[in-house]
Parts: sequence; C-alpha cells; structure tokens
Amino acid sequence: MPIDQTQEWQALQSHHRTVRDLRMGDLFAGDPERAKRFTLSLGDIRLDYSKNRITEETMTLLRHLAHAADVAGWKERLFAGASVNTSENRPALHTALRQRGGSILVGGKDVIAEIASVRGRMAKFAGAVRDGMWTAHAGTRITDVVHIGIGGSDLGPRMVVEALRPDTAPLRVRFASCLDDAELTSALSGLVPASTLFIVASKSFTTPETLANAILAKNWLLAALREESLVKGHFVALTSKPEMAQRFGVDPANIYPMWDWVGGRYSLWSSIGLPIALALGPEVFDDLLAGAAQMDEHFRTAPLEQNLPATLALLSVWYANFFAAETQIVLTYDWRLRLLPAWLQQAAMESNGKSVDRDGTPVRWATSPVVWGGSGNDGQHAYFQALHQGTHLVPADFLVALTGGPHRRALLANCFAQTEALMRGQDAAEVGPHKAMPGNRPSNAITFERLDAATLGALLAMYEHKTFVEGAIWGIDSFDQWGVELGKVLAARIEPELSPDGRIGIHDSSTASLIETYRRRGR
Amino acid sequence: MPIDQTQEWQALQSHHRTVRDLRMGDLFAGDPERAKRFTLSLGDIRLDYSKNRITEETMTLLRHLAHAADVAGWKERLFAGASVNTSENRPALHTALRQRGGSILVGGKDVIAEIASVRGRMAKFAGAVRDGMWTAHAGTRITDVVHIGIGGSDLGPRMVVEALRPDTAPLRVRFASCLDDAELTSALSGLVPASTLFIVASKSFTTPETLANAILAKNWLLAALREESLVKGHFVALTSKPEMAQRFGVDPANIYPMWDWVGGRYSLWSSIGLPIALALGPEVFDDLLAGAAQMDEHFRTAPLEQNLPATLALLSVWYANFFAAETQIVLTYDWRLRLLPAWLQQAAMESNGKSVDRDGTPVRWATSPVVWGGSGNDGQHAYFQALHQGTHLVPADFLVALTGGPHRRALLANCFAQTEALMRGQDAAEVGPHKAMPGNRPSNAITFERLDAATLGALLAMYEHKTFVEGAIWGIDSFDQWGVELGKVLAARIEPELSPDGRIGIHDSSTASLIETYRRRGR
Repeated sequence: MPIDQTQEWQALQSHHRTVRDLRMGDLFAGDPERAKRFTLSLGDIRLDYSKNRITEETMTLLRHLAHAADVAGWKERLFAGASVNTSENRPALHTALRQRGGSILVGGKDVIAEIASVRGRMAKFAGAVRDGMWTAHAGTRITDVVHIGIGGSDLGPRMVVEALRPDTAPLRVRFASCLDDAELTSALSGLVPASTLFIVASKSFTTPETLANAILAKNWLLAALREESLVKGHFVALTSKPEMAQRFGVDPANIYPMWDWVGGRYSLWSSIGLPIALALGPEVFDDLLAGAAQMDEHFRTAPLEQNLPATLALLSVWYANFFAAETQIVLTYDWRLRLLPAWLQQAAMESNGKSVDRDGTPVRWATSPVVWGGSGNDGQHAYFQALHQGTHLVPADFLVALTGGPHRRALLANCFAQTEALMRGQDAAEVGPHKAMPGNRPSNAITFERLDAATLGALLAMYEHKTFVEGAIWGIDSFDQWGVELGKVLAARIEPELSPDGRIGIHDSSTASLIETYRRRGR
Repeated sequence: MPIDQTQEWQALQSHHRTVRDLRMGDLFAGDPERAKRFTLSLGDIRLDYSKNRITEETMTLLRHLAHAADVAGWKERLFAGASVNTSENRPALHTALRQRGGSILVGGKDVIAEIASVRGRMAKFAGAVRDGMWTAHAGTRITDVVHIGIGGSDLGPRMVVEALRPDTAPLRVRFASCLDDAELTSALSGLVPASTLFIVASKSFTTPETLANAILAKNWLLAALREESLVKGHFVALTSKPEMAQRFGVDPANIYPMWDWVGGRYSLWSSIGLPIALALGPEVFDDLLAGAAQMDEHFRTAPLEQNLPATLALLSVWYANFFAAETQIVLTYDWRLRLLPAWLQQAAMESNGKSVDRDGTPVRWATSPVVWGGSGNDGQHAYFQALHQGTHLVPADFLVALTGGPHRRALLANCFAQTEALMRGQDAAEVGPHKAMPGNRPSNAITFERLDAATLGALLAMYEHKTFVEGAIWGIDSFDQWGVELGKVLAARIEPELSPDGRIGIHDSSTASLIETYRRRGR
C-alpha cells in the first residue's frame, strides 16, 4: 500500500492539524522535562531534538509510520547484504566496510575478508609513503599527494581530510574534481613533480572529468620527468576496473579495488579513503571506521525511541511531508567541518531525490528536501536573516564540538543562542514590526566532545542511516541514481557539435542557439 | 494595496492555471523563434531564458506586475540616493560607488567626490604594496595579506579574489572570517610575520568575530616582532569608526572609511574591496567597478522587455509566488566562480528574507527563496539526481564562460546538456519508470565570453539589481536586516553563563541543558 494511504500516515495528517499552531515556547513552559524527554545520546554525541514542533504523540505516530514502512525489515536487509538496491539488484554494503569480524557472503565470496586484505594493503602503503620508505622513482620522497576524483570519489575524502587535517603532517594532500582545469592548476601550484603522487579515483575508470584531469597530471609529470616509465610510479588508481587503470599506465601494484556493492556516495569508507589514510595516517582512518561502526551498531540495535539516525529521519519526514518544508539546513560551528553540507548534499539528495517507488510507481509525496548550509557562524552574517524573518520554514541541524580553540565559548554561545532565538522569536508588540521575529522555528542541537576521527565517523554514519530510514519510509530505492544518466548522454552528443566542423544535431532552439553562440564567438 | 490584492497579481494567478501544465518541449516545437524571443544580452553577456515555463503572455503579465509595484519609481529613488532603506531611513548607494562623474548629495555632501578620493588612496596604497614600495616596518616587503572580516566584509572580496586570482601575483591574499580560530590558523600557515599585512574590515569595528581574529593576529605578530610599535604598521582598517580602529592600534594613515549608505552585503565596491585591489591590482578593481557601472546603466535605462536584472527578478517571482518553489539554484561551470552562490546567499536572502512589508504589515506571499548551488560540473555528480528526478521544482541559473582552459568544450557541452535534459526529460514508456525523468524543469543559461573583471562586475550587479526588483515587487525593505539582532543579544547573554562561575539565567530547558552540558564536560 502506498505510504500515504496507510492509517499511520493519515493519523499524522490529522495530528498535524492539532500541532501545527502550537508554540514550542508554550510546550517548554508546560513541561519542565521537555529537553530531557527529547534528548538522545551515543557516547559523547548528544542530540537534543526538543526544539522541534512535536509532542510525545508526534513521535509515537512517527514511529508507527516507521513500522508501517517496515523500516526494521529494510534495516535487517541492509546489514545482511540483501539486494536493497532493488532497481539494480545489488546490496549496499557500506556498513560491511566498517564491520570488524564476522562474515558476509556476496556471490559466494566473504567480503569481510576481502575488505580486510585491501585495508591492510592501503595501511601499509600509506604508512610507507608517510615514512618516506615508498618512493615513486629514484628514491625521491613523496611530499604531496593530489587526489583526482569527482562526486563520491571526491566529496567524502575531501571533507574528512579538511575536517581532521593536522597543523603539520608528513604529506600535504590536495584535491581536484571538475573539468575546469583551473582547479587542478591551482592544486599543482608550488608542487614538484618528482615528489608528487597522484591518486586517480573512478569506479568505472571512464569518468570524463577524472580522466581529463589524470591526463593533465600525466602531461605535467612528463614535462618534468621526460620519460613515460618514470611517470608510471607517480600514479595510484582506486577503481573496480583495474585493467582500464593499467591501460592508462598505472602499475598493477598501485591499484586498489572498489566493489560493485559500494555506491559512490558511500565510498569514502572503501579504497576511496586512501587520501584520508595518506593525509592523516592509517590509524586515523581506522578510528574513523571504528566511529562509524559504533553508529552502525547503535542504529542496528537501538529501539526507535533511542535511535539517533531514525529520530533524525522521522523529524525530517515530519517537516518534509506534513509541513511541506522543501529544504533542510546543516550548520556547523567547527570551521573544519565546513564541507560537511557538500558531502551531505550528495548523500541525501542523490539517495532520495526520486519520484518513483521501488516498483516504479510515481510517488504522491515529497521526497528528499534540498540540503544546504555551511559554517554556521558565517551564516549568521549572511543568510540567517531569512532563517529568522523569512517566509519559509527551514528545519536546522546545529553541530558543534564542546572543546577546541581559544574562542570555543563564544562559538558555543552563538550556536546555542541561535537555536534559542529561532525558537523564541520576538514579539512585534515589544519591538515593532520590523524587528519582530515569528519564532517557532525548529532545530536539532548535535553536540560532541571534540571533532576527532571517531566522532566524525559516527556523525557521517548517522547521516547515512538517517537518509536510509527516510528512503524506507518514502518507499524508494535510495541506492540507484538513474537521473544523472540523460545529462551524460546529451553532453557526449553535444561536445563534438561544438567543434568548428561538427554537425549540429536536432535540438530545441535554445540548446541549438547556445551551441551556435559558442561556434560563432570571435567571428 | 498589498500586491496580492492587485488585478495584476490575480491575473497572473489565473494565467498560472492555464500555463502550469504546458510542456516547454511543446512550446519550443510550436515556435521556432522561441529561443530568440526569450534571449537578452548586454555586451557579450547573454541571458537565454527560453527554457522557462512561460509564454509571451506570462512575461507581459509579469511586467504589468512590476508596474503595479512601481518598480520604475523605486529604481529611480535607488539611483537618486533617496531613502530606499525605509526602516532605517537611509539611502542605499552601492551604485554610486560604481558611478563615474556626476554628483549625489547625501546630507549636503557630494558622495561621488568623496568616493573618488578614497578610491585614489586605495589605488595608491595597493599599487605601492604590490610594488614593494610600501613596507610595514624596517623596509621588509609585504608578500602576504590576510583579510579579516565576516559576512559582507568577507564574502564579496573573497569571491572576487578567488574568481580572478592570477597564477602568479606579487601578493598572496588570504581570508579568515569566523570565530573558530582554526580558520585564521590555517590562513597564517607558512606566513612570515614581518612580511604579512592584516586588513581588519568591520563597519562598526565591534564585530566580535572580526575583533577576536584581529587580536589573534596581533598576538601572532607580537610573538615574532616583540614590540607593539612594530606591530602597528602591519594593520589596515576598513571601517566607519576610525576612532575605534585607532584605539585597536591602527595607524590613522592606514584607515579607509566606510559609509552608512553602503550596506554590508553591497560593500565589496567600497573600501571593503581593498583586498581585491591588493590581490589583483587597482586597475583590475577599476575594471570590476566599470563592469558593474555598465550593468547599472543598463538596469536604469533599458525597458523591462530588455532588462536583464528585471527579467531574472520577474522569473524568480513567477516560480516563488505562483509555482511555490522554495529554492533557486545557481550553477557555475567556471571553477573559479564557485564562491558566487555563497555571496549570492547573503545578497539575496539577507535582502529579501523578510515577512513584513515596508509599513510593517505581515506579507501573505513568499519572499526570498533559499539560494544554493556551486560548481555545476561537481553538482552533476552529487545533487543533480534530485534536480532531475526529485519531487521539488528548483529553477536553475547556469553560468558559463565560452572561453578558458583546455576542457572548455567539454564543460560547455555539460552545461548546455544539463539545461536540455532538465527541460526535455525522458519518457517512462521509452526507458522504464526508474530512468524516467519528468523534465519541464526551468533554467536560465547565462553565457559570456570570458571570466574577467568587467564581466564579473556586471554579473554581480545583475544579481544585486535582480534582488532589488524582487524586493520592490514583494513590497519589502531589501536593505535592512533586523532579523539578525536577537541572536547577537542572546549570544552575548549566554557567553558569560558558560564560564565555570557564571550564573545561568532564565532559558527554556533545552538551551539551559546545552549550557549545562558544556559546563559539566570532563567532570
């Protein structure tokens, strides 16, 4: 039965009518235990979701909805390696990448053992490069790594490296993703070819952006090293197509496999995490995985009432489907976490930006909201005006570490005060209409002791599982991404049409005139 | 009369019912002139808005709405220096900063002459620092500049410097904005105190983030230079409170004024542009201003039918108020322009994220949508899935330069193909339900010859004026930002409560428990 036809959905619709005009301020005033009632924790990660437009009944009804959507069953299938990616008939085993011990069979092979073996190779390699024991050629120590990849092969490792980068490290790791060569050129600035290592990350090893940048990198090396044979040693490939990487000129010893059962947007836990191990050390990468595994275990075993990812998902559904909020904002008060929203945009929107259910029937309910955000303190001086006084409801996640740096108290004061101000608002009768703030705007406050690898791993896994629960409730396949295919096909068709002697195919007059504008330029 | 009560608004409502189900594909098929009909240009900037869910009648009715809202009158008042910031009774004279010649009197003073004099000082200073003629002390040449500011004192200059930064330059300019010291620490990494210049940008010179970072900078200099008197020469201040800057220890000769009639989010054109002049050269800053002035002139004089900013604004209103779209996305295919959306978030959402009209009456219509986006090519591998197959309508602006770099054709092919794919979609009958794409998703294609200073200036002014026209139609004051005040007040109240001996005031139980969680940590 479509989820919006269930009793549970309809109960929420009618409940929404009784709750939508309640003021959170009144709910706090009427219940001194409210913060305690709506706070969950896992280790030192604390989720205070009491500043939401909910009552106990709201949460009960939302949990009923989760039951109606068989969230528990989907969760079991996820962890067991069943084909939860129904449209592609594949498992989604990012949790296996974090699992210690046990075994999971995929096509008769134990993937846990295979993961451990690749992880061991990665650790050994990363350690040796960091120690200066591994050299590309002629014994020159590697000082810089440039990671080339796009989408899932870029956003995760880039975000983690930025979040945990120490002040000093044996290796500097930079990233380049898009087709505009300005990005790679900027990454290469100041680097010495003989001591630079390139990682080329592409599951299919056919991603045009990644190959174009890899070729630029090769030419940059060739210009300095002169001999193709010397260049070879400066490349590492992360791919599920090793033969393609070899053809490009990567030494088989420098190729690390990816697997079909890891989606790009979940791949930072796989060999795609190599730049993390290089930048931060293999033991830090282990900590990241261990933190994620702890969240996996919590998600798998904790009842819905105490389950952090599930609770975040239920609140998300509450606003997206009953308040019709089109967006969600994620605000971090740790500057080093500023790329989290970019990673989350892919994790959430590529997973749940769908319009048909698993059977291919169009859904009649909203799916993934637009996720946006960034450094919360910076946002206060930019778009927070609209959060406070604008006309749209934008549910917010505030994330902040309790310790770190000389201005931590001021940062925390700002973070806490923003959740308070959004909730309280300000009355026109007291301050006049232009300063009036409607208030009653919801937020989650997610605090943790410090921004370290284990905590970050747990937070990322938390958002991954939140996305999974949303998808289960919306009845969609959260693991495919068919919507990106047409654009690739059309781009491949248009590119030759842009050359002076290309023949222009059939297009609408707008696309045709864009092509012609390019061809006519400078004439 | 509230705008939604006007005939013009109601005509659009009923027109919307006849247009909302039209397919753009059919409109293109039925009108070979459609692209031409809906394309505007200014110099080599070309706006193709034909891939929108509009007919000729839509645009006519939208222009009628602009007349009903007296857009022409507000525009005249803007340029004349009248108090268009009604809640603060101030003009908004960012256009004066770009104007050459003429005069505008504010409080009896000709601001055009004053601007020219400050601009002259800035150019002389920037030139001298770049040439190595100006030194902080002891004749040590300045090699690095760190600009400290937040919000409008950061986003504009940071974006422009990133967009136009040459491969080699006499000065490296870095930025630090937020309270988390990790950002400034990262900016200082590798810098030598004796050859580093700090710019402290704060209109009020009381912005807590900026002062906190300025103090860290001072201590960093003091630790190396030892004497307070030597430190002085390493600071420049951009402020409307020179006496406060002097008290901080800035030499009066190194203070550049800001004016009350420039809002923070419009301030990159003022003395806040000093890091631009330093990083790129004063002549490049002049080109930026000249490009903006050209767009100002176009906006001021071109009829609505040919007016780029006004057309963008009318389309924005069309989707925000008649299709109820809560967001807009801005996608740049030039990597160097990747910070444009962050600047635009402030420009748009701080300006128009309001819920009352100029008289203080609550509005019944949606105001500023959430603006988001980034590097379009990267987005294709992340959130584009949701643009193509998600359930929300997200109107998109695609921006791309026709020339630049070895992969330009591939970039253009991707950019054009995405607009085509969003519009066309793909039929379930042909490809199956999971690959089906609804299509009919609107976009503007904004192309230009190359990303240079004059073009960038024009594009930024285009978005500023778009925002202004939206605000005029929504009947709001686009130049105040009262919504950010309460958060500041509450943060100042909470900060002392976080110290071990602080007395905790009255809060909701959530805010109180956040404060207690911090105070209890580690016990």
